Amino acid sequence: MNSLRAKSESRFLRACRREPVDCTPVWFMRQAGRYMPEYRAIRAKHSLLEICSQPDLAAEVTLQPVRALGVDAAILFADILLPLIPMGINLEFAAGEGPVIHNPIRTPAGVAALRPVEPCDSLGHVLETVRLVRRELDGKTPLIGFAGAPFTLASYIIEGGASRNYLKTKQMMYADPHTWHTLMGKLARVVADYLVAQVEAGAQAVQLFDSWVGCLSPDDYREYVLPHSQLIFRELSATGVPAIHFGTDTATLLPLLKEAGGEVIGLDWRTPLDWGWRALGFDVAVQGNLDPVALFAPRAELERRVRAILEQAGGRLGHIFNLGHGILPETPVANVKAAVEMAHESR
Amino acid sequence: MNSLRAKSESRFLRACRREPVDCTPVWFMRQAGRYMPEYRAIRAKHSLLEICSQPDLAAEVTLQPVRALGVDAAILFADILLPLIPMGINLEFAAGEGPVIHNPIRTPAGVAALRPVEPCDSLGHVLETVRLVRRELDGKTPLIGFAGAPFTLASYIIEGGASRNYLKTKQMMYADPHTWHTLMGKLARVVADYLVAQVEAGAQAVQLFDSWVGCLSPDDYREYVLPHSQLIFRELSATGVPAIHFGTDTATLLPLLKEAGGEVIGLDWRTPLDWGWRALGFDVAVQGNLDPVALFAPRAELERRVRAILEQAGGRLGHIFNLGHGILPETPVANVKAAVEMAHESR
Repeated sequence: MNSLRAKSESRFLRACRREPVDCTPVWFMRQAGRYMPEYRAIRAKHSLLEICSQPDLAAEVTLQPVRALGVDAAILFADILLPLIPMGINLEFAAGEGPVIHNPIRTPAGVAALRPVEPCDSLGHVLETVRLVRRELDGKTPLIGFAGAPFTLASYIIEGGASRNYLKTKQMMYADPHTWHTLMGKLARVVADYLVAQVEAGAQAVQLFDSWVGCLSPDDYREYVLPHSQLIFRELSATGVPAIHFGTDTATLLPLLKEAGGEVIGLDWRTPLDWGWRALGFDVAVQGNLDPVALFAPRAELERRVRAILEQAGGRLGHIFNLGHGILPETPVANVKAAVEMAHESR
Repeated sequence: MNSLRAKSESRFLRACRREPVDCTPVWFMRQAGRYMPEYRAIRAKHSLLEICSQPDLAAEVTLQPVRALGVDAAILFADILLPLIPMGINLEFAAGEGPVIHNPIRTPAGVAALRPVEPCDSLGHVLETVRLVRRELDGKTPLIGFAGAPFTLASYIIEGGASRNYLKTKQMMYADPHTWHTLMGKLARVVADYLVAQVEAGAQAVQLFDSWVGCLSPDDYREYVLPHSQLIFRELSATGVPAIHFGTDTATLLPLLKEAGGEVIGLDWRTPLDWGWRALGFDVAVQGNLDPVALFAPRAELERRVRAILEQAGGRLGHIFNLGHGILPETPVANVKAAVEMAHESR
């Protein structure tokens, strides 16, 4: 963990490559969001889709947590469902309800009608946000781009929103694998192009969010998901920037997530960091894995939990401190800031 | 798997004790329920709480799947939240919304006010259902009693209903462990007495449903849950009937669930049966673990999935075929029946 040289570079990017760092790098999933008063001030005047589609607003929101928290990376402010809009999905963020898709896709004809996407045209506002943020950050803090993974996007498209049992998603898998693979192939194509475009616009790392893939058994993951996520990571590796592969509930999927790709695998809090890293093998970096609810705990309890994770990492090269999932809306900002400092004391 | 002698006894109870069976026993969580037309006919005239509180109705609903499906065990029709009512919880099943608790408990005073429960008095209707069902089954098919585990019950009491992040539940754990343990101790006392009373009324096995415990890390399980569930299994083992310990999302918790207790550990579909059994050790029986959505698949695909589970069980003594969670409301009855036959072909 000791390298004077590391101090002048990005400890986040060094950790992604499992190189020595001066202390454990930290960022948080959903570090820009409703828990921050600066964000709520902008959100009071603009809808989520407005913020995402106006690069100056999206860039400002991306930068807020970098200024306020001292995190070691910025992550693009956007929504994983944005690339679905140019594909032909009629998406709405209903107040307090999460995303609603008014035209869920459940038939071969529906899948066939989904349009290909040219990111530079129809997602140009996101790429412009990447460029604005990079200019603003001026090389000091790296910027992470991201996208939703094909499975997680497919689950929204098919269910029409968030889901508890993924009934219709799995029904398509099991009853009509051809249509399923066609849909996944289309999504993988869009996501790969979108992420590569983000890298070309300046993203210095990317994260693929397969947030809900943990509802699958390993056999189903291998058959219905792995080849599609693998295509994305294969195309990303040609760009040279590190890729983070994240999901929740993935304890039994870890070797397959690694096989699909990514220089860094994200772990949720159900998987103890040392258990998960051993299951993956130490030839890959890991990211995680504080329970987002721990940020609501009294300070001493929060500190005990941050320290436990650092101890499980055991000073190995390639640990990025993060939560096991996104920051929750009511999280106290002071605790988020304190967690950054605690992780940084790990030198 | 070959014992002529086993045929004349209950293959379900024999499998719980890891004794030879003539073929793999089968039952399904939520095998009595909305997917069955016979159940919907009764539900059209009575609320869920009415059915639970009238022993003749509850017994009838308990027996419906035994008659219709040929399963190897009946499970008492009841709701895991019933014992909360005499404790002082104001519970309602709102249409299509799941349970709503109008007086969620989040303070030391609220926990202190929860009343102890004498099952023979305030849950006498459930015990009467057990007696009625036993009389009806006449020794041919064993009856499983059940209760919710302290953690899962606590999560409903504290959140006021179902939850996604268990924010308030974990907040009590982390910020006020004394109140948490007081609540869990009270729940464990009620659940232990309730299950022992079910056994005394005639239940020949019991299942403890810790359905939502998989939202915890192993460290949190050990500290905040294990001692309370352990008390229940300790008192159950004095009764001599086998106990099944079930949860979902438990891949990293399995050794701790076994430590807490149970002759049989339930696995969900995220955990391959052979992986899970190895993690537990083969000195305990296992139950599971078909994805409930597989019951919606075309027949050949369903058969492939049932066979895969039987192959993972590998003919070891102590496998009870079941789903990884409860039957979903729209499940086709014919597929449930077919799955029973497929599992029985495993001799």
